[in-house]
Amino acid sequence: MVEQKRENNEVRYNEEFLQMLLMEQEIDAFREHFLALHPYDQAKFYEKVGPDIRQTIYLYLSPEEMALIFEVIDLEDDEYEQFLSEMDPAYGAEMLSHMYTDDAVDVLNELDNEQRESFLEMMDSETAEEINELLGYAQYTAGAIMTTEYVTILENSTVRSAMAVLRKEAPNAETIYYIFVVNDQRQLVGVMSLRDLIIADEDILIHDIMSERVVSVKVGDDQEDVAQIMRDYNFLAIPVIDDNNELQGIITVDDIIDVIDEEASDDYSKLAGISDADDFDAGPFKAAMTRLPWLIILLFLGMFTANLMGQFEATLEKVALLAVFIPLISGTSGNSGTQALAVAVRGIATGEVNEQSKLKLLMKECLTGLFTGLACGVTVVAIIFLWKHQITIGLLVGAAICCSILVATIAGSFIPLLMDKLGIDPAVASGPFITTLNDVTSILIYLGLATTFINQIM
Amino acid sequence: MVEQKRENNEVRYNEEFLQMLLMEQEIDAFREHFLALHPYDQAKFYEKVGPDIRQTIYLYLSPEEMALIFEVIDLEDDEYEQFLSEMDPAYGAEMLSHMYTDDAVDVLNELDNEQRESFLEMMDSETAEEINELLGYAQYTAGAIMTTEYVTILENSTVRSAMAVLRKEAPNAETIYYIFVVNDQRQLVGVMSLRDLIIADEDILIHDIMSERVVSVKVGDDQEDVAQIMRDYNFLAIPVIDDNNELQGIITVDDIIDVIDEEASDDYSKLAGISDADDFDAGPFKAAMTRLPWLIILLFLGMFTANLMGQFEATLEKVALLAVFIPLISGTSGNSGTQALAVAVRGIATGEVNEQSKLKLLMKECLTGLFTGLACGVTVVAIIFLWKHQITIGLLVGAAICCSILVATIAGSFIPLLMDKLGIDPAVASGPFITTLNDVTSILIYLGLATTFINQIM
Repeated sequence: MVEQKRENNEVRYNEEFLQMLLMEQEIDAFREHFLALHPYDQAKFYEKVGPDIRQTIYLYLSPEEMALIFEVIDLEDDEYEQFLSEMDPAYGAEMLSHMYTDDAVDVLNELDNEQRESFLEMMDSETAEEINELLGYAQYTAGAIMTTEYVTILENSTVRSAMAVLRKEAPNAETIYYIFVVNDQRQLVGVMSLRDLIIADEDILIHDIMSERVVSVKVGDDQEDVAQIMRDYNFLAIPVIDDNNELQGIITVDDIIDVIDEEASDDYSKLAGISDADDFDAGPFKAAMTRLPWLIILLFLGMFTANLMGQFEATLEKVALLAVFIPLISGTSGNSGTQALAVAVRGIATGEVNEQSKLKLLMKECLTGLFTGLACGVTVVAIIFLWKHQITIGLLVGAAICCSILVATIAGSFIPLLMDKLGIDPAVASGPFITTLNDVTSILIYLGLATTFINQIM
Repeated sequence: MVEQKRENNEVRYNEEFLQMLLMEQEIDAFREHFLALHPYDQAKFYEKVGPDIRQTIYLYLSPEEMALIFEVIDLEDDEYEQFLSEMDPAYGAEMLSHMYTDDAVDVLNELDNEQRESFLEMMDSETAEEINELLGYAQYTAGAIMTTEYVTILENSTVRSAMAVLRKEAPNAETIYYIFVVNDQRQLVGVMSLRDLIIADEDILIHDIMSERVVSVKVGDDQEDVAQIMRDYNFLAIPVIDDNNELQGIITVDDIIDVIDEEASDDYSKLAGISDADDFDAGPFKAAMTRLPWLIILLFLGMFTANLMGQFEATLEKVALLAVFIPLISGTSGNSGTQALAVAVRGIATGEVNEQSKLKLLMKECLTGLFTGLACGVTVVAIIFLWKHQITIGLLVGAAICCSILVATIAGSFIPLLMDKLGIDPAVASGPFITTLNDVTSILIYLGLATTFINQIM
């Protein structure tokens, strides 16, 4: 019965009970209760218990049963190595060979070369070869996330024989809901959904009912582009082909959700200047170590700013009031730079910004910077006049804010575009970096203007 | 044949050719070529052409064919209203009634009350009632994104009769890959995948092979929580039940991808202080208007900072050199505050931070702030001593940076936690806001220290 509901983070299984069964060596009772759980819940339990309890789990579960857990488990990078080293190597190798190839590749990618090789040697040669091929694809490409367990049907089969193939392949294929149709040369020529197959007449030829307009990706395509296509077309799986149009693998929607999540979290982290290792679970020392590199780099940039400002010490000495508006000006220009940066990074990530539209984006941001700069400038002049009854200082601060926003907005869109051009991930031009850069320029603009018009201000 | 590949943003269809067929009123040729396209490509074409060509499309396509386009189209909010108002109202109503209910609800939600009512009145009463029910669920809940087109099977059916139901329902159901098993009271009692069904013996009872451990969500559950569960368990669909355990609808994976995308983009936008309307397509004036509210609010906060600094004008007059380090201190504390903010917002979003672990996060961030503060403080003292040969100013700036980072890190995690507690989306405590807040505190700390130790500095 459906008694167990998920209320927030409440677990769906009885952890103490399972632990007790393991400790009292109740193998049958443990297997009965544990194997009734969804693999995700099995994984949560496995992940949570200590190493000695895990040793008992390895004894009680077959490598095949363990493989289901490792297909869904979401570990820190170094934990894969740790957990695998706990297992008997032969057990680990057999588990890996029972996993879907794409998931096995994910795990093997976390190991060092030597360990990876030793596992591959222990596997049966066919599986090892398939995995080796996938390991050869560059990270973040379609080839690296595809699986080789899928169902293909020859175009001249009947619906009846296709259903028979499907029934046979169902237990091993990662998805049977799309059937990929190939010709004698294994070239992809069509696609069918299981939905269409089960409502079709049994004697009809696949070739006559398949869809010939297959949307496919190449092994070398970027995983983000693949995610975009699958999202746009609402696909549950997409075929991956090589340059010769031969079917090499498929990518299923669950892997794409992981890609979307990863990329989004990555962009977010970079905007904030943090690393993905800096999550809730990290201890304070580890968190500090991941944050410090950015902070120290920015500290040096800040010292550089301070040094530049030192050139204007004479001006600041004459009119100390000038210093009061520095945080206002650098803050506002930093904010508008971050806004422009975020729009550009997002545009590049979604593919809306391409070679032809780069100039258009820059032109647009120039105008946007001008509008926002003027609006903020006028506001500041008004506030300073109404509040402090200072018109000269007000005009100076207003002019500085207007120019700084303009420059910051252009820089905020130009820098990610330039990085994209140079083949660097534009998200690396993170928020803190743009902000610090804009600190420098805005202060130069402000104190430069102040020094020029020092006689009017005093 | 699979000749048409996607190279970056290259389209998969011949736009000019389709336009020509429309203009020359070649209805049969247009229908043949257009309907062979994937609905997503149909939508891209439909979206791109002008209003008079769209009028011809309405003439050439049935409301049912148009419904497929509207199920996948991704328009700006106000475009739904515009496109629907172009159609004959009866045509529009029929199109809406042919759409999956969840997609129809998405479209109707973009219209004003009056328009919505008039469309609902023109639909057949059964569909209108189903849609009305979905419209009643609060935004961002499972109820609001679920669909009512799914396949249910009674638990005492045989596999054979279940397959017959499936074949009958396949054309209308949003997914047939999961079959939800109910008892006589429509209560959810089990689930089966089509994969399990097609390999099962035809005479067996569903009750004997279904999985009784159904993972389900409640109609009122937050869509982000639903997304998290579907991601964890790799589900293609999840059933939605009411408090009485009665099945009310299902949520499919394509809707969940949209949720994940939206939420991620939302958090990203808020960290940068931009709105989702501020995308690549927006004109410079529109972009400026969406960015200005934040900039102006922060400008007022900045003026407040300036005013506070004014209190220290006497100190700044005595030692103008002090002003030189203001951007360094406020910048560094702003950066560390944003880092802490991003970790907290992400932790809350993924559900890792809950009531029990809030205090743990705060304690951790106190220590992290202390470590990073000390490290940056010592670095600054060293730099200023080595570079400027100033020890007193160095110690002052170092102490100010150390304290500011500590305060900023704590504030960066405390504020989103507090907002979450108050029921406000923590991502609203955006990067610019935290940065400006930390400007104020860091400058108060710095100039406060400077004023206290003014005699040592001079």
